[in-house]
Amino acid sequence: MSLLGKSYNPPGTPPGSLLAHDRGRLEALRISLIEYNDSYFEERKAISVDECRPYLATPTLTWIHVQGTAEPEVLHNLGEQLKLHRLALEDVLNTGQRPKAESYEGQLFVVLSLPNFKNGRIDISQVSLFIGADYLVSFHSATDDPFEPVRKRLREQTGRLRGLGTDALLHALVDLVIDQGFPVLEGFGERIEELEEELLQHPDKHTLAVIHQLKRDLLVLRRMLWPQREVINSLLRDGHHLIHETTRLYLRDCYDHAIQIMDLMESYRDMAAGMLDVYLSSSSNRLNEVMRVLTVIATLFIPPTFIAGIYGMNFDRSSPWNMPELGWRYGYAFSWVIMLAMIIGLLVFFKHKRWF
Amino acid sequence: MSLLGKSYNPPGTPPGSLLAHDRGRLEALRISLIEYNDSYFEERKAISVDECRPYLATPTLTWIHVQGTAEPEVLHNLGEQLKLHRLALEDVLNTGQRPKAESYEGQLFVVLSLPNFKNGRIDISQVSLFIGADYLVSFHSATDDPFEPVRKRLREQTGRLRGLGTDALLHALVDLVIDQGFPVLEGFGERIEELEEELLQHPDKHTLAVIHQLKRDLLVLRRMLWPQREVINSLLRDGHHLIHETTRLYLRDCYDHAIQIMDLMESYRDMAAGMLDVYLSSSSNRLNEVMRVLTVIATLFIPPTFIAGIYGMNFDRSSPWNMPELGWRYGYAFSWVIMLAMIIGLLVFFKHKRWF
Amino acid sequence: MSLLGKSYNPPGTPPGSLLAHDRGRLEALRISLIEYNDSYFEERKAISVDECRPYLATPTLTWIHVQGTAEPEVLHNLGEQLKLHRLALEDVLNTGQRPKAESYEGQLFVVLSLPNFKNGRIDISQVSLFIGADYLVSFHSATDDPFEPVRKRLREQTGRLRGLGTDALLHALVDLVIDQGFPVLEGFGERIEELEEELLQHPDKHTLAVIHQLKRDLLVLRRMLWPQREVINSLLRDGHHLIHETTRLYLRDCYDHAIQIMDLMESYRDMAAGMLDVYLSSSSNRLNEVMRVLTVIATLFIPPTFIAGIYGMNFDRSSPWNMPELGWRYGYAFSWVIMLAMIIGLLVFFKHKRWF
Amino acid sequence: MSLLGKSYNPPGTPPGSLLAHDRGRLEALRISLIEYNDSYFEERKAISVDECRPYLATPTLTWIHVQGTAEPEVLHNLGEQLKLHRLALEDVLNTGQRPKAESYEGQLFVVLSLPNFKNGRIDISQVSLFIGADYLVSFHSATDDPFEPVRKRLREQTGRLRGLGTDALLHALVDLVIDQGFPVLEGFGERIEELEEELLQHPDKHTLAVIHQLKRDLLVLRRMLWPQREVINSLLRDGHHLIHETTRLYLRDCYDHAIQIMDLMESYRDMAAGMLDVYLSSSSNRLNEVMRVLTVIATLFIPPTFIAGIYGMNFDRSSPWNMPELGWRYGYAFSWVIMLAMIIGLLVFFKHKRWF
Amino acid sequence: MSLLGKSYNPPGTPPGSLLAHDRGRLEALRISLIEYNDSYFEERKAISVDECRPYLATPTLTWIHVQGTAEPEVLHNLGEQLKLHRLALEDVLNTGQRPKAESYEGQLFVVLSLPNFKNGRIDISQVSLFIGADYLVSFHSATDDPFEPVRKRLREQTGRLRGLGTDALLHALVDLVIDQGFPVLEGFGERIEELEEELLQHPDKHTLAVIHQLKRDLLVLRRMLWPQREVINSLLRDGHHLIHETTRLYLRDCYDHAIQIMDLMESYRDMAAGMLDVYLSSSSNRLNEVMRVLTVIATLFIPPTFIAGIYGMNFDRSSPWNMPELGWRYGYAFSWVIMLAMIIGLLVFFKHKRWF
Repeated sequence: MSLLGKSYNPPGTPPGSLLAHDRGRLEALRISLIEYNDSYFEERKAISVDECRPYLATPTLTWIHVQGTAEPEVLHNLGEQLKLHRLALEDVLNTGQRPKAESYEGQLFVVLSLPNFKNGRIDISQVSLFIGADYLVSFHSATDDPFEPVRKRLREQTGRLRGLGTDALLHALVDLVIDQGFPVLEGFGERIEELEEELLQHPDKHTLAVIHQLKRDLLVLRRMLWPQREVINSLLRDGHHLIHETTRLYLRDCYDHAIQIMDLMESYRDMAAGMLDVYLSSSSNRLNEVMRVLTVIATLFIPPTFIAGIYGMNFDRSSPWNMPELGWRYGYAFSWVIMLAMIIGLLVFFKHKRWF
Repeated sequence: MSLLGKSYNPPGTPPGSLLAHDRGRLEALRISLIEYNDSYFEERKAISVDECRPYLATPTLTWIHVQGTAEPEVLHNLGEQLKLHRLALEDVLNTGQRPKAESYEGQLFVVLSLPNFKNGRIDISQVSLFIGADYLVSFHSATDDPFEPVRKRLREQTGRLRGLGTDALLHALVDLVIDQGFPVLEGFGERIEELEEELLQHPDKHTLAVIHQLKRDLLVLRRMLWPQREVINSLLRDGHHLIHETTRLYLRDCYDHAIQIMDLMESYRDMAAGMLDVYLSSSSNRLNEVMRVLTVIATLFIPPTFIAGIYGMNFDRSSPWNMPELGWRYGYAFSWVIMLAMIIGLLVFFKHKRWF
Repeated sequence: MSLLGKSYNPPGTPPGSLLAHDRGRLEALRISLIEYNDSYFEERKAISVDECRPYLATPTLTWIHVQGTAEPEVLHNLGEQLKLHRLALEDVLNTGQRPKAESYEGQLFVVLSLPNFKNGRIDISQVSLFIGADYLVSFHSATDDPFEPVRKRLREQTGRLRGLGTDALLHALVDLVIDQGFPVLEGFGERIEELEEELLQHPDKHTLAVIHQLKRDLLVLRRMLWPQREVINSLLRDGHHLIHETTRLYLRDCYDHAIQIMDLMESYRDMAAGMLDVYLSSSSNRLNEVMRVLTVIATLFIPPTFIAGIYGMNFDRSSPWNMPELGWRYGYAFSWVIMLAMIIGLLVFFKHKRWF
Repeated sequence: MSLLGKSYNPPGTPPGSLLAHDRGRLEALRISLIEYNDSYFEERKAISVDECRPYLATPTLTWIHVQGTAEPEVLHNLGEQLKLHRLALEDVLNTGQRPKAESYEGQLFVVLSLPNFKNGRIDISQVSLFIGADYLVSFHSATDDPFEPVRKRLREQTGRLRGLGTDALLHALVDLVIDQGFPVLEGFGERIEELEEELLQHPDKHTLAVIHQLKRDLLVLRRMLWPQREVINSLLRDGHHLIHETTRLYLRDCYDHAIQIMDLMESYRDMAAGMLDVYLSSSSNRLNEVMRVLTVIATLFIPPTFIAGIYGMNFDRSSPWNMPELGWRYGYAFSWVIMLAMIIGLLVFFKHKRWF
Repeated sequence: MSLLGKSYNPPGTPPGSLLAHDRGRLEALRISLIEYNDSYFEERKAISVDECRPYLATPTLTWIHVQGTAEPEVLHNLGEQLKLHRLALEDVLNTGQRPKAESYEGQLFVVLSLPNFKNGRIDISQVSLFIGADYLVSFHSATDDPFEPVRKRLREQTGRLRGLGTDALLHALVDLVIDQGFPVLEGFGERIEELEEELLQHPDKHTLAVIHQLKRDLLVLRRMLWPQREVINSLLRDGHHLIHETTRLYLRDCYDHAIQIMDLMESYRDMAAGMLDVYLSSSSNRLNEVMRVLTVIATLFIPPTFIAGIYGMNFDRSSPWNMPELGWRYGYAFSWVIMLAMIIGLLVFFKHKRWF
């Protein structure tokens, strides 16, 4: 994902234009469909837009799921049949949208960000949902399908989802997308704890890059998840006629989860900032300590080297005043005594000052 | 406690599912019950859910307290009898919830965080409360029971608690949980003062880790206590029919305490940040000072060593121009004078510059 | 652009005075005009103010565009004909205005900032728009004309712009100005990614200046774009009679884009701050590492130099106690052994401490 | 004052319990009383609670002032006679309260923080006020009496205070407490200016501790004064029946002062933070400079020492290729030329680089 | 100006007391008066308060301007005649007030801060305005008169000021005070640009003090100008009967300018903070670089000095094992080869590592 993280039409393009983006990752688009109500369940995989048409006419609920990078033609086709607003379709195509909830005559359009924690890196894909009275169309911009658990609940009739309206299905999908934040944050939490361990044990240059990466990932994650809270809040508050009172109770629970995730994220950001401080401090400490020991060693030997230099001088010993020590019987031992005294004196001094 | 600090169901699980979490600390669950009114008091310890049933049917007030990690089956059983909402039960089970107050038809559900300061570390457990017209069910996710003082007040009929409704009991419990913040912050305050002492006297590597730990603890504490203020405020403001006007006055006092605790917490956070600055500065000062003294010592001896090197040269003294000093009568003394002059000159210079 | 970025009249000047600013970049002013409705289209380039007059009297929509630094006389002339408010005209002349939307009896006055990313530097020009029931006058304070795409849409009748009112034209222009933020931010994003690469590979003094420049550019950009969000919001919210309901829907989309741009900008600012931290840290690390290696080398040779100094002393060997090693058969080898032992010992010690 | 700065009852204590705190500074409690109206004035010092009773029954205004640490029995006694709410009395006893204004049936209860600048340190005491229709009871938790100026105004009938109600007396006391912030901040201002002087002249280790202390004092001061603004605002806004319209005008003035004090405090906090930055930078600069000069000195002598070492080698001069310089007539002078050239070359180089 | 920047009465003084402050800069007070309406204009300079009286009685508009430090007696005298509120007069006397707008029965009282950029330093004086139906009294606490441009507009009848009410005059004065911020900020902008230049070219100790001074000046400026925005907003919003609708439009423009000034100020503060970062970094870089080069030089010579030391040893060459190199024909050359190899080897190594 580029840093911008967002596809956009060139400035000046008429709003609602559906332009293909050459993002080099055009996987085959897969459309699946589930037709259900309390007593009926039919599932179709890998069908075409045209095959969806008859299902939309029936009174049973229809969930169309479009997996992969959307193509302008498919979108246009779907949009025609379901009367989806062009501005909303543009947002489906230009992924990297800020999460939002908007209503277009009788329809609700919701954009969410689905975070994923793969190989220690964060990956964010876009989930776009159109909700009408008896249909829900979902788009997911990545390759792997996150909605299988919901499909299974419908298929196996766990919970009461089958007997409820599209708002309950909407809640199930939103809930899944929001809750996806927990394992992601758990992954971050583990990464932080490992880093803290590493930080106090043996910080190195690599640690800095990892902390920087962590901070950047949290920054991106926060930008994409922060508005999600507001999206659910607006679903709760704006009283759209498609959302029933009972669903509202469940959305409140969802809102709660979204807030917990934001709280955690903020804590992690603070922790990452704190780790940077500790890194800077302990890495500087460590380097200074090295320098201190090195300098101690050098400093120990410089004064006695001076003494050795003294007695290496070649003054003319014919004068009795010149270097009489050289003629002493124990002159050499005397010089060693001085030199060792210097070394030991410094050692004691350093020890006393706790520089070792 | 893991950094996430929160149990959660896997994304896609139907909301309200009660799943067991393998947290490796499943202590025996203990249920206790107090049945009381103005003139009656009965206390039962270590009873089963089924034994609670007859007490719930009576008009006297019933306080059921569940101590320890809740088990899905127990919760489910209790939920059935008291008609507790499944979403609320899920929150009881998935501890580490953000404090909140929610109302489900005729019932009030309150989640609080109970901080504890043990062995210099912070530990946070979850208190969940269900309040109905004539019962209160409390859950506490840790081993030790914090509510004994309230039980004693009921038992010994101190204060007017026995003559009042479940809202007064709710206030007594909330008040106790909030006020628990004061000794915890007092503990932090002492830790900070010790650290400041240590910081100005002899900061070492360990100090950094302790400051980092302090900041992290305050971060976690803040995340868990901050919403508590809002919880009490919503109890005050939302005018739930279970909360009477007189209790409201006492809750206002409670709210006041919650705000004072948050104020203190913010001050402590600022102090911890300030301590980090001082640590960084004084540790860098200390190391620099060491280097300075070491370098001063080395610098004192390098110039005279150069002089000694000069007179250790072996130029052919047959030329009168070569090293005449070596033939001087007081050549050696002369060299010492030069060398000592260098050393003393540097010492005076360093002293003048206050580098010692 | 000076740091102030804003032209202003001297304090005490009567409000609404149109004073020329000697900004040394008075390019020829170019006025162009488009007269259109659903079925009619006429385009005039490089015309005078007086030539505009007849077009204004017709019921068809008139779009007058003034390109380049406005001159007081031209503005005054235009203002007279279109009854533009003097305070608004002052704002057109004194470029560097904060984006704003204001209404003067029946007229809407909108000021926007148009960012441009040229040669790695940011450049911001002012777009001022007067909107009446059947005319729109636009001013752009720079040399190059950004509105060609809109002109082309009118000319070639792409989209439905020709059939709608001046509010649709207003939206088209605002949309274009806002969306201009995306390529600018994309440019910034690439600059940030290059910088991050450079930062981790080989940071140098230049990198610091570039990060500083980036931060400053983002600061200026933010100051000029931040209020834009509020401008669109006020167009949406204040319910000016010139803005129709359908246009409102499109403006909402525009508002969305403005928020995304601000979000990205904030992320970039955080990233730039993070990069500064990394720069400081890694540059200090790098320098410290150099010092460490240098000091290691010096420290390796100082102790053996001391030994060499010892055996360079000239003690009188007539005393058997003086320097007997000099007379040993393998004295020289012995000294080498000691010296090499010292070097190797230190090397092993340094290796063990991982100082290499 | 401990860092917590607040007395509290153990968690679980019934609200409104009056418990004695062993704070080791129980000075004798002094109660004084002033009975006044437009034409009457009586002052009593050092009286007992029981002696106050008859004065309370009269229609003249009664101001009871309790100086020193309150004792539970005295409070209880006073509370009984004046029907003061137990929760309020608890707040009087547990000093270190957050400033607040609360109303209990017909009574107003106000808590304020009175800062004091003694010997360069800040000291904060609590002022608690109960206001009824014809009485005002004030408590001050420190030894020295701050309210003498108001007493004097009543005694000498300066201003119109004698002819007005208890709300005017309340204003006079609140005004005095708030305005006490000005001399305190003036003291801080002088301290900051001295520090800045010291900072730029000769910063030392002590300076750091002083800046840290200043920041901490400002932090504590801010925590205690910040809510004061809100207290006055609530007196202004809540329209308590005891506060008359004319007094409101004067309270607005008071509010203004409170805001100015907060503004100044924030500026001082920013300045203190700025000073820390300057300290860190200039202390690091100073140390680095020392190291630079030292290293310059050492570096000057190392290369010539190498040359001296060369000519101190003992190669066998029987080979004409070995050390011919030693036999030169001007060999010694030659070596000095080389060595001095090295020293001078380095000096010129260092000078050119401005390293001196 | 002291750091507190504010005169205040001692705590406990009755509100509204007019006390003289010994600020050592009591210049002669100058009162001037302009009497005007659409067709009449009279200007009086240096008159006494008593001479003003007859002008106040006429229906024409009267503008009394008091220049210099106000004296209590003059204020008291003026206050009596114009029925100015004592609290407002106290604010005129105690300069350094926070800008504010207050209304006292039928009168509007406005306090503003007038910044001035003299000799690279900021100076702030207080402008106080009383506005009634047919008079405006202005006070300015400094020596030089800023209002001459407005006086000239009245005198020469430029603009429509003469034909409008006191609210238009109020706007003219407020506009002038606010707009004074632009040249001040332009001055700051130039100072910042010079500093940035200096910063990247040759930062020294002086630069730090200048940045610190700049930050402090911006802090003071911000504290005094920030509330100004709110003042104008309250004039706009509170709908005081003295402010007419047309003036409101002009005040809106004024408000706009106030916001632009605050925006710029915030940007400058951010830039100043950024400059401090760059200063710290580049000054530390510069010092480190010096140390690196110095250490490189020292490190180059230490290893060959060791070699020279070796061949300066005096081992007894009678043993063939002792120092045979000394006897080699090319021993000396051999030693030079080794030493040069060491130096060149290190140079190549350093070059390769880019340490030069």
